[in-house]
Amino acid sequence: METIIKISCHDEKGLVHKITGVLFDQKVNVTQTNEFVAEDSERFFMRISFTGTCDVDLVKKQIIDLLPENSLVEIIPPKKKKIVVLVTKEHHCLGDLLIKNQFQDLPFEILAVIGNHDTLKNICNQFNVPFHWINAEGLDRETHENKVAKVIDQYNPDLIVLAKYMRILTSKFSSQYLGRLINIHHSFLPAFIGANPYVQAFERGVKIIGATAHFVTDDLDEGPIICQDVVRVNHTLNAKDMSKAGKEVEKIVLSKALKLVLEDRVFIHQNKTILFE
Amino acid sequence: METIIKISCHDEKGLVHKITGVLFDQKVNVTQTNEFVAEDSERFFMRISFTGTCDVDLVKKQIIDLLPENSLVEIIPPKKKKIVVLVTKEHHCLGDLLIKNQFQDLPFEILAVIGNHDTLKNICNQFNVPFHWINAEGLDRETHENKVAKVIDQYNPDLIVLAKYMRILTSKFSSQYLGRLINIHHSFLPAFIGANPYVQAFERGVKIIGATAHFVTDDLDEGPIICQDVVRVNHTLNAKDMSKAGKEVEKIVLSKALKLVLEDRVFIHQNKTILFE
Amino acid sequence: METIIKISCHDEKGLVHKITGVLFDQKVNVTQTNEFVAEDSERFFMRISFTGTCDVDLVKKQIIDLLPENSLVEIIPPKKKKIVVLVTKEHHCLGDLLIKNQFQDLPFEILAVIGNHDTLKNICNQFNVPFHWINAEGLDRETHENKVAKVIDQYNPDLIVLAKYMRILTSKFSSQYLGRLINIHHSFLPAFIGANPYVQAFERGVKIIGATAHFVTDDLDEGPIICQDVVRVNHTLNAKDMSKAGKEVEKIVLSKALKLVLEDRVFIHQNKTILFE
Amino acid sequence: METIIKISCHDEKGLVHKITGVLFDQKVNVTQTNEFVAEDSERFFMRISFTGTCDVDLVKKQIIDLLPENSLVEIIPPKKKKIVVLVTKEHHCLGDLLIKNQFQDLPFEILAVIGNHDTLKNICNQFNVPFHWINAEGLDRETHENKVAKVIDQYNPDLIVLAKYMRILTSKFSSQYLGRLINIHHSFLPAFIGANPYVQAFERGVKIIGATAHFVTDDLDEGPIICQDVVRVNHTLNAKDMSKAGKEVEKIVLSKALKLVLEDRVFIHQNKTILFE
Repeated sequence: METIIKISCHDEKGLVHKITGVLFDQKVNVTQTNEFVAEDSERFFMRISFTGTCDVDLVKKQIIDLLPENSLVEIIPPKKKKIVVLVTKEHHCLGDLLIKNQFQDLPFEILAVIGNHDTLKNICNQFNVPFHWINAEGLDRETHENKVAKVIDQYNPDLIVLAKYMRILTSKFSSQYLGRLINIHHSFLPAFIGANPYVQAFERGVKIIGATAHFVTDDLDEGPIICQDVVRVNHTLNAKDMSKAGKEVEKIVLSKALKLVLEDRVFIHQNKTILFE
Repeated sequence: METIIKISCHDEKGLVHKITGVLFDQKVNVTQTNEFVAEDSERFFMRISFTGTCDVDLVKKQIIDLLPENSLVEIIPPKKKKIVVLVTKEHHCLGDLLIKNQFQDLPFEILAVIGNHDTLKNICNQFNVPFHWINAEGLDRETHENKVAKVIDQYNPDLIVLAKYMRILTSKFSSQYLGRLINIHHSFLPAFIGANPYVQAFERGVKIIGATAHFVTDDLDEGPIICQDVVRVNHTLNAKDMSKAGKEVEKIVLSKALKLVLEDRVFIHQNKTILFE
Repeated sequence: METIIKISCHDEKGLVHKITGVLFDQKVNVTQTNEFVAEDSERFFMRISFTGTCDVDLVKKQIIDLLPENSLVEIIPPKKKKIVVLVTKEHHCLGDLLIKNQFQDLPFEILAVIGNHDTLKNICNQFNVPFHWINAEGLDRETHENKVAKVIDQYNPDLIVLAKYMRILTSKFSSQYLGRLINIHHSFLPAFIGANPYVQAFERGVKIIGATAHFVTDDLDEGPIICQDVVRVNHTLNAKDMSKAGKEVEKIVLSKALKLVLEDRVFIHQNKTILFE
Repeated sequence: METIIKISCHDEKGLVHKITGVLFDQKVNVTQTNEFVAEDSERFFMRISFTGTCDVDLVKKQIIDLLPENSLVEIIPPKKKKIVVLVTKEHHCLGDLLIKNQFQDLPFEILAVIGNHDTLKNICNQFNVPFHWINAEGLDRETHENKVAKVIDQYNPDLIVLAKYMRILTSKFSSQYLGRLINIHHSFLPAFIGANPYVQAFERGVKIIGATAHFVTDDLDEGPIICQDVVRVNHTLNAKDMSKAGKEVEKIVLSKALKLVLEDRVFIHQNKTILFE
């Protein structure tokens, strides 16, 4: 298993040379390095994976010491990330995640599922994953979110995955979990922002529909995009058919995005992502 | 070579039976039939291709007589369509069309190219295709368009192709050529409507860009979509790189859309297209 | 719900007119018709879907009476197809099918799963689907197949789906279920026929891998192809990584192919399929 | 404009650190680095791009000195590569290259085109690119190839592009230009090796066809693959239609592969390529 180092800092000459020097001195075995400099912001990003043991705190200190100010250095030990999944009524993304959880297809562990409806309670039971029904009926948005957050927090997950959670989140909620909230949106963003994208797509007569996995920020459907994919449609599909066709691509896109995040291959920079695939 | 019949009318029982009966009586050889009923509008669409000779006017009359009121019937003889191409400075779509024109890769004949700049005069000369430079400088939009329309009209083309013509058209101009004006837009519509879609795409951090060929109507970038395709991008591409990556897909999408229209496989219905591929 | 008519016969003039005439007389509501003539064999194929009631046997007789000799006419009532799934150890295709079975995403009902290993017993239990372990150890191929066939036959399924069943079938077995056996092969056929296609793909250094769903015939991996799809790979993936990347596309391709077959949209003609999508 | 360094050597710890140290000392501005280690062969590959001036010979010497034995180091100055194109009768790939040459869409310069037929003489003339007709009629393979090689050699090109050159090459010829010969094959290799791949594809009834750009080696269609892409087909296309559909993807794949090679992003390793995109 590999340890991952994620670094971002202001760009300057010699960074790769200096950083790799620390690891060379530690005699660990570097298995992959990736670097990128964002031209417009002159920000440097690096991901290093290595095997072998070293004093992680020392390595981190040594790297920070040779970087410019305001640098970020994370050293991530090789272990599965823990996640909580939020759902409403649709089962296709959740079903895929439950299968992958049970058979360890992705380096994650689903601690719990929270639904604002109880439609998906049974499938969670079948997989022996705790399901929490937090009914939103009769509650104002903030009260409901507080109840959801309370359950999330008792699991202390690394990531919260919105697997077709069909409620709009308050800015308060999304900022509470910034960088840890991943959503699957059922359109090829920024096309068809908002509700009922398949109805919008049908009415516009598009020939391709898509899905977008993104980090959630304040702005609905405007967070950093991690992964997108598309599927061809034609005039014979109505909005409902498009929705069905879209479900397959939704679950694939969510799964791909999760894989990248779980392997620590994703950096958030401004409102975009940098992916070291 | 095949003759094509295009029919659209209110749907009712027995249409396929009745229409094919006319052709059976005429003893022509039907090579392909396609039908579609738009659920929401209850409109029936049919395309028939056949070889063999018959009295075309009689066939048309016979078909109309057995259809409900307000039906449209077109019988299109087997001949190449004539087109005029409008361009600005970018050569990639035009270059592809000139090659295809010379080698007869598509059933069309380019009668002339009109540019609001003279950048592409030389490449047209190389292919011995007339180029008309109609400078927009110092002219108001309508005066310029009138000059363009005058040149178009002297060629009396079946189709006008906007092959990266970077000027906004007035409603007057587009309605003058309704159903005959095809544009290639450098984004995956309806994402990134308007100017500089690649800059918009870069700033939004999308992972896929695209191109859209559509009929031009009053509303800029809102006409019936014929064809779309996409290409993957990532964080290493800036807006200029995306623009380059997009050019390849633009020319393919335009070419595919043209092929469909030139073969009379496209019906316009409300603000959408029906494609019998 | 729709009734489906599937017709294939030698091509001659007027077939569409005559066939649709029968349905017009019956006053049923035809919702879709598709036709195709295979040029080389002059064979005509037609699929008609309709709603409304009629004397099905009479309609079948009337259609047969007006077709040339050696015609095939099937009238398929609107009901779910019953299937038995064969597996070995890999769970990804089976998992997807079990989810879709439970939530009725496809018009099928999984009656049972048969495995030559018992690895996937538990997941079947979780979904309350009978699992039969038929161990092949110590048995010759024919004896094992006879035991498998005996279990299949007690369920009398419409289709048998090989969802990563990793045993070679005898000609006797496959001919017993001709036209009802669907396999998912983990390569883009005809590339990488046979064992370990991902190892072959890795060694050849391909940049795209794929999956193929096909009907099973005598010849291993040579039956009529229903559906194919691909996924991009690169030099950073070893054979095992390619195998993982391939699993997602395998399950999608199998699911798409099944949908087409379950909706009676697939004709087998010689060693190919005709798909009326 | 950027200078490129390409390095390959046996893998050992600290390579990135040491190599980037040389460039840090030279005070040049490194714009991109990519590294890869082939697991099975323990071979290390690195591409570095930089701007700024330095003593190139010294840098090369310094890098070689710190690498293990049998290392390869190339420093490639920023200039366009010169190419010669070989063709037969098909124009689609050549046409695309001639347009891109004239408008400088790719960092190359086409010095000449050689054809075994004179079909494409005119289009070369239109673009003012020298065309050499070397008729193969009445010549044995080796004599013809010697004449072709003689013309190639008088131009001393960096690359020779086989843009639908429909003659089998002798091992002598291909080894003469090893690593400099790029071919576009009209199938998704290794499917449909050899002649008439579209006829083979039609007969097999595949649902996707493709194209492959690869380096040419001794073994026909077996050289290292650079780029592949696919396009969907269905039962309505005969072999000729598939061939037409394939032409678009052929020219795109060739152009993508060339871009990668022209930008020195391609390493050949055993019979595969490593692409630093």
